Amino acid sequence: MQTKFAKRVTTASRSFTRTILDLTAQSSIISFAGGLPDAALFPRDSIEKHAKKLFETEDNRLFQYSNASGVEALKVEIAKKYVGTTSAEIMLTNGSQQGLDLVCKTFLDEKDCIIVEDPSYLAALGLFHMYNATIKAAPLNANGVDTVALEALFRDYSPKFFYTIPIFQNPTGYSYTLETRKEVVRIAKKYNVILLEDSPYEALRYDGTQTTAFADLLPELTIALGTFSKTLAPDFRIGWMRAPKEIISALTLSKESTDLQNSKFFQHICAKMMQSGELQEHTKTLIQCYRPKRDAMVKALHTYFKDSIEFIVPEGGMFIWVNFKKCDDSMKLFDVAIKKGVAFVPGSVFFADKRISSYGRLNYTNSSLAQIEEGVKKLYEAYVELS
Amino acid sequence: MQTKFAKRVTTASRSFTRTILDLTAQSSIISFAGGLPDAALFPRDSIEKHAKKLFETEDNRLFQYSNASGVEALKVEIAKKYVGTTSAEIMLTNGSQQGLDLVCKTFLDEKDCIIVEDPSYLAALGLFHMYNATIKAAPLNANGVDTVALEALFRDYSPKFFYTIPIFQNPTGYSYTLETRKEVVRIAKKYNVILLEDSPYEALRYDGTQTTAFADLLPELTIALGTFSKTLAPDFRIGWMRAPKEIISALTLSKESTDLQNSKFFQHICAKMMQSGELQEHTKTLIQCYRPKRDAMVKALHTYFKDSIEFIVPEGGMFIWVNFKKCDDSMKLFDVAIKKGVAFVPGSVFFADKRISSYGRLNYTNSSLAQIEEGVKKLYEAYVELS
Repeated sequence: MQTKFAKRVTTASRSFTRTILDLTAQSSIISFAGGLPDAALFPRDSIEKHAKKLFETEDNRLFQYSNASGVEALKVEIAKKYVGTTSAEIMLTNGSQQGLDLVCKTFLDEKDCIIVEDPSYLAALGLFHMYNATIKAAPLNANGVDTVALEALFRDYSPKFFYTIPIFQNPTGYSYTLETRKEVVRIAKKYNVILLEDSPYEALRYDGTQTTAFADLLPELTIALGTFSKTLAPDFRIGWMRAPKEIISALTLSKESTDLQNSKFFQHICAKMMQSGELQEHTKTLIQCYRPKRDAMVKALHTYFKDSIEFIVPEGGMFIWVNFKKCDDSMKLFDVAIKKGVAFVPGSVFFADKRISSYGRLNYTNSSLAQIEEGVKKLYEAYVELS
Repeated sequence: MQTKFAKRVTTASRSFTRTILDLTAQSSIISFAGGLPDAALFPRDSIEKHAKKLFETEDNRLFQYSNASGVEALKVEIAKKYVGTTSAEIMLTNGSQQGLDLVCKTFLDEKDCIIVEDPSYLAALGLFHMYNATIKAAPLNANGVDTVALEALFRDYSPKFFYTIPIFQNPTGYSYTLETRKEVVRIAKKYNVILLEDSPYEALRYDGTQTTAFADLLPELTIALGTFSKTLAPDFRIGWMRAPKEIISALTLSKESTDLQNSKFFQHICAKMMQSGELQEHTKTLIQCYRPKRDAMVKALHTYFKDSIEFIVPEGGMFIWVNFKKCDDSMKLFDVAIKKGVAFVPGSVFFADKRISSYGRLNYTNSSLAQIEEGVKKLYEAYVELS
């Protein structure tokens, strides 16, 4: 048979991160490649306790078809994260990745223009390609997006939305200053561009103070995406969207035709854990465990690499974005590093144009302190061998 | 703000079935409108037992990110349903509705032609519209699709796939004869058209014998969709796809970019229930409970309506498709019926062209025997009032 796939599929490539995840799962390689939370920290007792209670107290309707937008009690808890927001402005999704998919499905016609940060989240770039979007990238620096470049793109391309990860960005770990945010808000209003604000790592802050979200600065033009995959557990597959009601209605219609609804079982558990404060307490534990890991990686990078690399210490999240300045193409470093027994993600895959890059993304949440020390050492050996 | 949705959304309408579900959930109306299984029959003890075991025996990786195609043990069990099929040809989805979405995403470029049965599943028609597909409909009769009309459509439009529900069809309850299936296979081969075989009700057979699935008659050109929503529980959100490996690979890529993966928790439980034979036993129970409901509805329809309506007794599934021949437009009957306290779905919404129809779809699985008798009586009163 000659299979006649859609054009979007024939131009898509298998996710590089997924390839690395498969590789590192099967070997003794120390992996700084994924974006996985530390499974040892999942609040298992709490999950089990609430699951047991659900079985004891709920009737069989727990397992029946229900509405597409999710469990009301959980939407109420999530609404509290935003100023003046009600549960009608919240919708739950199958992880925040599905939020991205539903936004694309609801807003994008073929060739519509969207703006991304350069670099940006790999799986978002892959998804935008699947929708045959015209993707324009605005440079990102340590204070956030380059707003002069962004304004020019808004003016020249009338994009449907600007996809931004303003806190502890993936892959860079950079965060927008309040000043940058305000300038983005100004130009979003001026050119009527939706801000698609993705904040998966927001709760994982180790230093500094929170700046106001786009969802609160410009609620009428912001679609905010969030997730419990980093704070609770990825397998729960609970993400959310906050947007004006009119947009939530359209997104709900897209959700219904896409997969009718999510499983509500873990949504109920998540709601109970928020109502009781258990999730908030658990998040503090995560921060206490992840901060030393970040610090250990920062220290090891300084110890081994000294001035031969550049990076900014992230205030939170899961990643450090390193400029391996003596290695023009970090894909070559990746090949040597794998042989030494350590993995990371070469920067190239995070750029919309996939250009050759000296950068690399290092994850520290899913390795032990000893593995972090050992992995950075191996990475340095690879770096020396290459230069 | 002027919201700039995609064209697909501005032409989509809120699902009529969802509207009816909302209406009937809030009132004392007897509903023959939905397609809901009987929640009282969910195998709660079995679910709870296996959930407890999972908590006891599995480590925290149970809640970690995992692969996009689903739990291997469950894929192995599902593969056994098809001749000569391995788990590599199976992929799990968030309900079979997501299977439909992923097939569209993977195969459809704008304006691509697809063929549906006339009438067909409402939420599939809605989804195909979302992909801006060119939809052509082939008439359905009690022996299956009109193959002469189908061949003409295959020849004239080179469709990407033919969407078929060959057993206990939705909305009609009709089943393809083996002869019709073989003719469909012949022309699918001749014109190289994929058969998208959706069989959500397959396991719910009350009379007669199973015919061979398209997936077994023409595996190289068939994408088969299945679900545990009707046999186990809808909230588990477990559907599956069986297709040639090359197609499963492409569908998996689409799944990854759409929502990374499903929750695996209930997939593990479902696998355990299949391995132990509990699900198979449970299906027998369902049949024993649903058969009398079908029979009660058939009897009540004969008792009240006598020769003033026409219908074919379905051998299984959840629906009876009634021709209210004295009422040209069953939407009018619906309005009167709601006032009398009974709901059904007017036939119009199941036709691709939404034409006025004298047909209606009646569900019998989610009402008690007494409600079935009472509801049919009310429906007859509405019918008399209208004619």
